Amino acid sequence: MDTKQLQSLLEQFKANRIPIEELISQLTYQDLHFAKIDHHRNLRCGFPEIIYGENKSVHQLTKILEKLLNNEGPVLATRINEKKGFKLKADFPELEYNVLARTLARYTDEKKLGTVAVMCAGTSDLPVAEEALVTVNVLGFEAIPIYDVGVAGIHRIGAALEKIKACDVIIVIAGMDGALPSVIGGLISQPVIAVPTSVGYGAAFGGIAPLLTMLNSCASGITVMNIDNGFGAALAAIRILNQCNRFIQ
Amino acid sequence: MDTKQLQSLLEQFKANRIPIEELISQLTYQDLHFAKIDHHRNLRCGFPEIIYGENKSVHQLTKILEKLLNNEGPVLATRINEKKGFKLKADFPELEYNVLARTLARYTDEKKLGTVAVMCAGTSDLPVAEEALVTVNVLGFEAIPIYDVGVAGIHRIGAALEKIKACDVIIVIAGMDGALPSVIGGLISQPVIAVPTSVGYGAAFGGIAPLLTMLNSCASGITVMNIDNGFGAALAAIRILNQCNRFIQ
Amino acid sequence: MDTKQLQSLLEQFKANRIPIEELISQLTYQDLHFAKIDHHRNLRCGFPEIIYGENKSVHQLTKILEKLLNNEGPVLATRINEKKGFKLKADFPELEYNVLARTLARYTDEKKLGTVAVMCAGTSDLPVAEEALVTVNVLGFEAIPIYDVGVAGIHRIGAALEKIKACDVIIVIAGMDGALPSVIGGLISQPVIAVPTSVGYGAAFGGIAPLLTMLNSCASGITVMNIDNGFGAALAAIRILNQCNRFIQ
Amino acid sequence: MDTKQLQSLLEQFKANRIPIEELISQLTYQDLHFAKIDHHRNLRCGFPEIIYGENKSVHQLTKILEKLLNNEGPVLATRINEKKGFKLKADFPELEYNVLARTLARYTDEKKLGTVAVMCAGTSDLPVAEEALVTVNVLGFEAIPIYDVGVAGIHRIGAALEKIKACDVIIVIAGMDGALPSVIGGLISQPVIAVPTSVGYGAAFGGIAPLLTMLNSCASGITVMNIDNGFGAALAAIRILNQCNRFIQ
Amino acid sequence: MDTKQLQSLLEQFKANRIPIEELISQLTYQDLHFAKIDHHRNLRCGFPEIIYGENKSVHQLTKILEKLLNNEGPVLATRINEKKGFKLKADFPELEYNVLARTLARYTDEKKLGTVAVMCAGTSDLPVAEEALVTVNVLGFEAIPIYDVGVAGIHRIGAALEKIKACDVIIVIAGMDGALPSVIGGLISQPVIAVPTSVGYGAAFGGIAPLLTMLNSCASGITVMNIDNGFGAALAAIRILNQCNRFIQ
Amino acid sequence: MDTKQLQSLLEQFKANRIPIEELISQLTYQDLHFAKIDHHRNLRCGFPEIIYGENKSVHQLTKILEKLLNNEGPVLATRINEKKGFKLKADFPELEYNVLARTLARYTDEKKLGTVAVMCAGTSDLPVAEEALVTVNVLGFEAIPIYDVGVAGIHRIGAALEKIKACDVIIVIAGMDGALPSVIGGLISQPVIAVPTSVGYGAAFGGIAPLLTMLNSCASGITVMNIDNGFGAALAAIRILNQCNRFIQ
Amino acid sequence: MDTKQLQSLLEQFKANRIPIEELISQLTYQDLHFAKIDHHRNLRCGFPEIIYGENKSVHQLTKILEKLLNNEGPVLATRINEKKGFKLKADFPELEYNVLARTLARYTDEKKLGTVAVMCAGTSDLPVAEEALVTVNVLGFEAIPIYDVGVAGIHRIGAALEKIKACDVIIVIAGMDGALPSVIGGLISQPVIAVPTSVGYGAAFGGIAPLLTMLNSCASGITVMNIDNGFGAALAAIRILNQCNRFIQ
Amino acid sequence: MDTKQLQSLLEQFKANRIPIEELISQLTYQDLHFAKIDHHRNLRCGFPEIIYGENKSVHQLTKILEKLLNNEGPVLATRINEKKGFKLKADFPELEYNVLARTLARYTDEKKLGTVAVMCAGTSDLPVAEEALVTVNVLGFEAIPIYDVGVAGIHRIGAALEKIKACDVIIVIAGMDGALPSVIGGLISQPVIAVPTSVGYGAAFGGIAPLLTMLNSCASGITVMNIDNGFGAALAAIRILNQCNRFIQ
Repeated sequence: MDTKQLQSLLEQFKANRIPIEELISQLTYQDLHFAKIDHHRNLRCGFPEIIYGENKSVHQLTKILEKLLNNEGPVLATRINEKKGFKLKADFPELEYNVLARTLARYTDEKKLGTVAVMCAGTSDLPVAEEALVTVNVLGFEAIPIYDVGVAGIHRIGAALEKIKACDVIIVIAGMDGALPSVIGGLISQPVIAVPTSVGYGAAFGGIAPLLTMLNSCASGITVMNIDNGFGAALAAIRILNQCNRFIQ
Repeated sequence: MDTKQLQSLLEQFKANRIPIEELISQLTYQDLHFAKIDHHRNLRCGFPEIIYGENKSVHQLTKILEKLLNNEGPVLATRINEKKGFKLKADFPELEYNVLARTLARYTDEKKLGTVAVMCAGTSDLPVAEEALVTVNVLGFEAIPIYDVGVAGIHRIGAALEKIKACDVIIVIAGMDGALPSVIGGLISQPVIAVPTSVGYGAAFGGIAPLLTMLNSCASGITVMNIDNGFGAALAAIRILNQCNRFIQ
Repeated sequence: MDTKQLQSLLEQFKANRIPIEELISQLTYQDLHFAKIDHHRNLRCGFPEIIYGENKSVHQLTKILEKLLNNEGPVLATRINEKKGFKLKADFPELEYNVLARTLARYTDEKKLGTVAVMCAGTSDLPVAEEALVTVNVLGFEAIPIYDVGVAGIHRIGAALEKIKACDVIIVIAGMDGALPSVIGGLISQPVIAVPTSVGYGAAFGGIAPLLTMLNSCASGITVMNIDNGFGAALAAIRILNQCNRFIQ
Repeated sequence: MDTKQLQSLLEQFKANRIPIEELISQLTYQDLHFAKIDHHRNLRCGFPEIIYGENKSVHQLTKILEKLLNNEGPVLATRINEKKGFKLKADFPELEYNVLARTLARYTDEKKLGTVAVMCAGTSDLPVAEEALVTVNVLGFEAIPIYDVGVAGIHRIGAALEKIKACDVIIVIAGMDGALPSVIGGLISQPVIAVPTSVGYGAAFGGIAPLLTMLNSCASGITVMNIDNGFGAALAAIRILNQCNRFIQ
Repeated sequence: MDTKQLQSLLEQFKANRIPIEELISQLTYQDLHFAKIDHHRNLRCGFPEIIYGENKSVHQLTKILEKLLNNEGPVLATRINEKKGFKLKADFPELEYNVLARTLARYTDEKKLGTVAVMCAGTSDLPVAEEALVTVNVLGFEAIPIYDVGVAGIHRIGAALEKIKACDVIIVIAGMDGALPSVIGGLISQPVIAVPTSVGYGAAFGGIAPLLTMLNSCASGITVMNIDNGFGAALAAIRILNQCNRFIQ
Repeated sequence: MDTKQLQSLLEQFKANRIPIEELISQLTYQDLHFAKIDHHRNLRCGFPEIIYGENKSVHQLTKILEKLLNNEGPVLATRINEKKGFKLKADFPELEYNVLARTLARYTDEKKLGTVAVMCAGTSDLPVAEEALVTVNVLGFEAIPIYDVGVAGIHRIGAALEKIKACDVIIVIAGMDGALPSVIGGLISQPVIAVPTSVGYGAAFGGIAPLLTMLNSCASGITVMNIDNGFGAALAAIRILNQCNRFIQ
Repeated sequence: MDTKQLQSLLEQFKANRIPIEELISQLTYQDLHFAKIDHHRNLRCGFPEIIYGENKSVHQLTKILEKLLNNEGPVLATRINEKKGFKLKADFPELEYNVLARTLARYTDEKKLGTVAVMCAGTSDLPVAEEALVTVNVLGFEAIPIYDVGVAGIHRIGAALEKIKACDVIIVIAGMDGALPSVIGGLISQPVIAVPTSVGYGAAFGGIAPLLTMLNSCASGITVMNIDNGFGAALAAIRILNQCNRFIQ
Repeated sequence: MDTKQLQSLLEQFKANRIPIEELISQLTYQDLHFAKIDHHRNLRCGFPEIIYGENKSVHQLTKILEKLLNNEGPVLATRINEKKGFKLKADFPELEYNVLARTLARYTDEKKLGTVAVMCAGTSDLPVAEEALVTVNVLGFEAIPIYDVGVAGIHRIGAALEKIKACDVIIVIAGMDGALPSVIGGLISQPVIAVPTSVGYGAAFGGIAPLLTMLNSCASGITVMNIDNGFGAALAAIRILNQCNRFIQ
């Protein structure tokens, strides 16, 4: 719920078009016993409640989606595997399912000011990159994919540098040695959000190696997200872009 | 070196006031054998080269400071312990030494648009908070300290909420359970930079516990810095504020 | 075996209704070679021997259940997956199988004084919460579920606070950042038992992240259980309620 | 502040004996900039704010102690090393300094109902045991020390068993193998709070070994505290005893 | 190959009944390219080469078994899963397959002096215990199983103590808290070999918890094996019994 | 692309046989959106771009192989599981699929000067050893397999020593205790590249144990690769042999 | 107390030469409040209670030594640093202080049958080796030092092999790669007790590297002790030798 | 001892100028009880025995140095702190002490063919870099220092690239993110030996972060040394250069 929706809701209540219980529920959260849907997160945080699908059943997802689709605005569920995704896509044709990103989404028409570069070091990082890309897009911002530009072939970074510099926030995704954010961070002045991935040989330890690399980046002012968390990186980028937009209001 | 300084430098060169070797050195870096000073980092990254003092001798610090103080603009050295700090302060009276933050700094007069809230959960987190505060200030932005507001007394957060919401970027510093960023992140829409500290009982493991808490924050879009890295958090905030300022140019 | 059962057993022996070998076995344990059933744990610990089903075969579970069902009082087996659960339910119709909690139980009619709040932070924590809930109920106490009240939407906690304060012991279950017990512990005076779950993105490391958060809680006097151990949390709560009941004897 | 103190405070305000600012400060917290003293924690949690002295300077401790000593009731600072302890003891003669426990305390005269057994496995665990003992005593409950009863000489446990069974809550402190809580937990029905210590040979890893042992205890319903956290164990015991006392109100 | 077999082999060579190449191969090892079979390990170490089956194919196992079965004496392959086990049992009817222990063995008729107690704490530790038991038996010593005697019911240990004391070496197997060897080690004077198992809730971390417990046992002189390594424990026991037998030669 | 190929390419361009876009692409990399193929890695690093197949789909592999097979010289894809391998082998008959090594390769006819010994400690290390062997061969050098020579039967090493000493670089592969490189490193003067494998009982922790052993080798000058990284070891050997060959140019 | 001492004690009691309280104390343990001295451990375990001096004060050590020296037989305190050692040596001239081993001991005249080889890989392992050596000697067995025989110079092992084979139990101490026990274990048939030490470069991690090496030894039947625990290794050897001696009784 | 020295030694023996005991000792090792000096390591490994000084006393170092200085050729002791260094320098004036590298050395006049680049990422890595540099020089090869060229200022690498490409082996030393070897490895074809250092903020964990980065380098064929092990890197480089030299013999 954003400010406009809130105003409309209150006017409907005043005009007796919705009962008080409904109003309270919309203003706080809806209790489905196994989940409490947080309708005014958008007011507080600048983005709506988004569904983390990993351990939820199709039944639970259906119940939550039904409630969220009643509202206007973007709807997003992440970590929806293929089996759940195609099932839910069939039931909710207004949703778009992205196999690689594992997302189920209703996009918004509203376009906001700001562009996010989504870089990744290798082909294996694509699912994380696509999750970030979809999230940025669903919530109304532009996203530019810049893929397979690892540090072992540093000329590929040079070739992409102008494109990167034209973006407002840079998400840098890498597995294995996780060295890409350090190189990027030393070349540009924009905010850099580093995301380690769980890709790699034995001693990558499911993403610990690139996570530590990024936390210890010798390029200053690099921030870090959880392993494989493309979604979180997108939301961090959106927090920044929302703030940038406040500067021009 | 920022754009204005660069222009001035090139004009001096054209006017034969500085030799070509000096120009090249200023445009790239100066080689002191044990260190290569990166003069045009400001052009690339939006902030000048800053000295990490942890393992450097007073002799090495003196050599580097002499070079950096030749330039205009802010100068900052971090992780300067008391012994080194008072010695260098005596040699370079234009620098200010902050015992708690362990910083040696020449502040800039130029004030830039943007305010950073520096929150910390407990009294023991103060050195990290002060390092962030000094760094933000030295580089020309405003910083608001909001200290000792841990989640075990959540009414203290409520009391500070309006002050927090008035800032553009929020740095949240916490040791032990590191839970503060999750609570803050769920209450506001600004960018949140979480910094774990090495404070606490045995199983905090020198900061691993709050680091993991923050990486796994259930409030979406929280970014994380290395343990005790107040300096890095400040630079991440400045990358964001610089970007916000570009929106109004 | 509780005190009443013991008295009855001894009287039967005196009246020659059971042989001495049976009495000894009942007083100590029964040896099934692969398992020794501990009949007088109830006397020592205040709760009967409960079966940990994880690595036991249906054959082994059958043998143990046959012996335990001979006694009066509650019977409980945990970590019984669906396949084993429905098989055993068919053989022992007096047992109730709970798919979500993965428990197989014979409830007791005896109701004891005391209420346990079972809180969880997210929908994915439900299996652990349900295991705690069933255990508390099977052993004769009341349990109140309070689900999906994570710290990222702190107003949901406020809404539940009165309900929580009316309980005698609070079990708080959370994955990811594990921050919920810190917030709860700072708001109430009751005993708080924190249970980390293995839910979450990469750097949650199968529950290590919330485990460390809880061990380092800045709210004082929070106790912690093993990862995903809803059963253990319930028994810890019952140890406390049993002790409370002794205060009124 | 407890309920009685609150009532008295409100009456003084009504009678114009204290100004409204003072009342607000007493009802919430006092802001010393580097620390916010939480005066009504006692109302919320059943015990007053207690000072964690580890990283606080004598100056900071002095400021906080001055405020806390203004109130009635018990005062406690933990992790006060000898140097700080004797200095502060000289300035605040009403405080008692315990070298082994590293505590600085003003005891309460009020005696509450309930007894805590404080067991430890070896002589090296004494500082942790004493910290627990002092905390229990300062806050008005009885504590019984039962020291050096490790599992390698199990007859020593047998000898102490009756004494243990007479207590209401059992704190069990052990380093190295941390096996003592498992043995105790299998012998008694009271709440058991296990505290690992950082004592031992190489692979004890500063307390990780006994911490893991205790989290994995095969005696059910054992709760665990952070490494070396005798203070936290005492507060957990007090939460339980306070709850027991509510059963007889 | 033991000393008697060696003597017989050399005499056959002298009598021209075997060629020199065969003798050399028998005296050193046989090269199957993917494996080099070590025929005189028995001479050096007191037990023959034993096959670790974990990552070997049925084809590789067949080749190695063919060679080993040519020699006299015991033959043993460990970590043979059911599929491989029943296949190889069909091809080599002289071998005995034990499903629980996952072993394939040809027993020796020769009985040696010495008895090993194989204790385990819980039913889930049985596969490790059975692997130890089979290994001890195959190599000619007696083994006494003493199962499900965990420390949470310490009276079960008392009941078994006389049986334990009658053995020459004690293997103690435990998962979860791994506390059993500490209790046993404090009660008896025989050599104790502790084996951690990978059984348990989350924070057992696949056996790390009991491994650390055992390495830090406060009962002195306890030795430790790798996680789940029942086979290794049996060989350690046999090294001891072989040495004991040398005392009576 | 090597120097000869580069020259030929430039001459074709001069002769107008290829367009400038093609030339640029060949000189830098080809962009398939999901992957950027690095054609001049051979010029920079002495070996061509090699495909890491772990997380790539058959579709992606097909696209990349099509491009790489257009060039002359060796082609190699590693970590190709059986299912992908046989599918791609069918589509690209010029490639050779090695099931054990999990490689898909087009060998080069050019033979270069230099021999690599590929040693492994046990039969279970074969997949890693074969991956190293294939890589060395595909890139034109000789490789000598020396398998199953673990330190527990040190006479097997003695027997192979002359063969080892005749090689120019020694790759030593071992799981479990990882002790083989220490023994080999103390016996020879050649470069030794140690590769830990993920084979073994519980506390091998997926290769951490041998990795640490090798990093701490008491034989000086041993270098170490990532766990199971036979491919990387081969490339490290080739870097050395290429350098040796430069000494005779 | 051994069997002979027990008999004498009982006869003194019968003859009224000692009071009943003294008898009970001697038969169980003496309570010094901070420590309970276990007088009949020798009866149970085959060796007397030995003092672990690490965290004990000179005052505590004095109290315990006074009690232990009242008994006949060997007395041993380990981990006594130089400062404590020389102070206690002055007060108890009958004790011998060994600076390298950090032990304070009263040797026994009684010599028992059995010899222990104490091997170490490098000079830095000497304190651990000497602790083992002293412990073996104090308790009446022979110990043979074999020092600085690391696997990087394997001919040094060959030279010592005959001496090693003449011993009954082999303690093998090594830091860094910890590879020595694997080589020794493959060459001999005696019991091998491996002790990792905390010596080495960064990634030895205070002994974790050699600890894991030893737990994963590919020589079968190697047992392992805690890091730096020379004392424990000696007691494990003595448990074995005591058992060997029972074979000839 | 190299081949020339060996020949001379044997001729002296034949000419009765040295006794047989002396010859044997020179051919194998000298036994100082606490250390066995390995005189013919040079013959086996291509470099002499080098002293690891970390835990050795001045007395032990003196004894060993006396023996080694009797031989011709280079002598080197590493990890000699200032106190030991200046003491030993005074006693052995022919040795050179390097404070930064912590080495004590007698250089050889013999110059061998081959040059090693010693790169480091930051000023704090200098002690490790200098240890590598001294070791390379002492053993007769040339070493080129290239310092402070971290990836955050990638133009500094470009400036040094020609110098790097002119060397035969590249040692790359880096702490924090450890990203430098990945960038270097992608730009050159020489052997690259990566050395992590223990420098950095909290989550560098004493060098674990850069160690993992390097093991997971996405530039292929990078080999890795232990944390802070500049000495080992130098020996690995020398093994390579010795092999290169054999190609031209």
